[in-house]
Amino acid sequence: MSKIITISREFGSGGRELGKRLAEALGVPCYDSQIIEMVAEKQGLDKAYVESASERDIRAFYPTTIGVRFSASTFFINQSVELFTEQTKVIRELASKGDCVIVGRCADVLLNNEKPLNIFVYADKDSKIKRCLDRAKDGESLTEKDIEKKMKEIDKGRADLRKMLADTKWGDKEGYHLMVNTSGKEIKSLVPGLAEYAKAYFND
Amino acid sequence: MSKIITISREFGSGGRELGKRLAEALGVPCYDSQIIEMVAEKQGLDKAYVESASERDIRAFYPTTIGVRFSASTFFINQSVELFTEQTKVIRELASKGDCVIVGRCADVLLNNEKPLNIFVYADKDSKIKRCLDRAKDGESLTEKDIEKKMKEIDKGRADLRKMLADTKWGDKEGYHLMVNTSGKEIKSLVPGLAEYAKAYFND
Repeated sequence: MSKIITISREFGSGGRELGKRLAEALGVPCYDSQIIEMVAEKQGLDKAYVESASERDIRAFYPTTIGVRFSASTFFINQSVELFTEQTKVIRELASKGDCVIVGRCADVLLNNEKPLNIFVYADKDSKIKRCLDRAKDGESLTEKDIEKKMKEIDKGRADLRKMLADTKWGDKEGYHLMVNTSGKEIKSLVPGLAEYAKAYFND
Repeated sequence: MSKIITISREFGSGGRELGKRLAEALGVPCYDSQIIEMVAEKQGLDKAYVESASERDIRAFYPTTIGVRFSASTFFINQSVELFTEQTKVIRELASKGDCVIVGRCADVLLNNEKPLNIFVYADKDSKIKRCLDRAKDGESLTEKDIEKKMKEIDKGRADLRKMLADTKWGDKEGYHLMVNTSGKEIKSLVPGLAEYAKAYFND
């Protein structure tokens, strides 16, 4: 069975960087935006569109909200379901190829049968805002308020998506094997220990 | 500043063993039952008495419950406060001696100024029951129901004690730097990675 590590993360916690560096340390591929690219390519759609649709619009077919969304175009609902189904296929396909790290996309839940090591990455609000400000592109003028709003929206989307798929709540320890608080820390300094942990985890 | 690691843990999760093994791996002392022994000696009391009083009766002086406890003997309330004060002194004294691992006793909160690495150890219910059954002394006949009852009582005591001292809830990720799920795992296999993690954590 492949050794699969999934990274779930709070927006701004550095989870994406952690996944990338952890994969490098272990010498395995890290799948993140490639998943979206593959889905977009298979569906003949724009990458940016797939990115927003796959994490948000999928809620349209969540049974308890279907009444509220009744007025939404059937086209969009169908497309969301189709995108999600395609994304699930892509994730399972990538996982079947061998050891890897997968960032986001509810891979922890979707790959449950593969017994992945599920890591959740989080941080305190100030650290997350600082990280977002530090990584903002040149010329991008984001205020702390903007970031906080975005943070809440994105994390809510992630929590809602997980709610449809799993019994455990997004970010609650019960659903993960290791929870890493990156507050005030350089991601690269945390990785060697996590790589050791992951190796031993799969050998036990 | 000393490098201090605190271990908070769910009953049956193997947190005590993890603390001991982690300290061994790092070549530093692990303080656990010694704290109780030192408090008992200083107060001229029996170790078993101090053990139960220090984690449970301390709630007697918690402001919001003091009305309920009004009928409790003033002697016991005073003694609980005294024991807790003594325990706090002992923990601070041990921490000031140098790098170490401290298991339980709210050391994570009491030593906040020393910037410890706070680890929370947890597991699913079945794993915790199995661990308790495996480590039961010869001749000890515990049922799963007994263990589950004890588990709930002890963890409630720990959560209540923390509530008096900290803003974050016992077992909620916000209060810890690393959360380790030991479900179905041998503690010794998890330790080398955690030791690496701890070393890098303090060097960042």
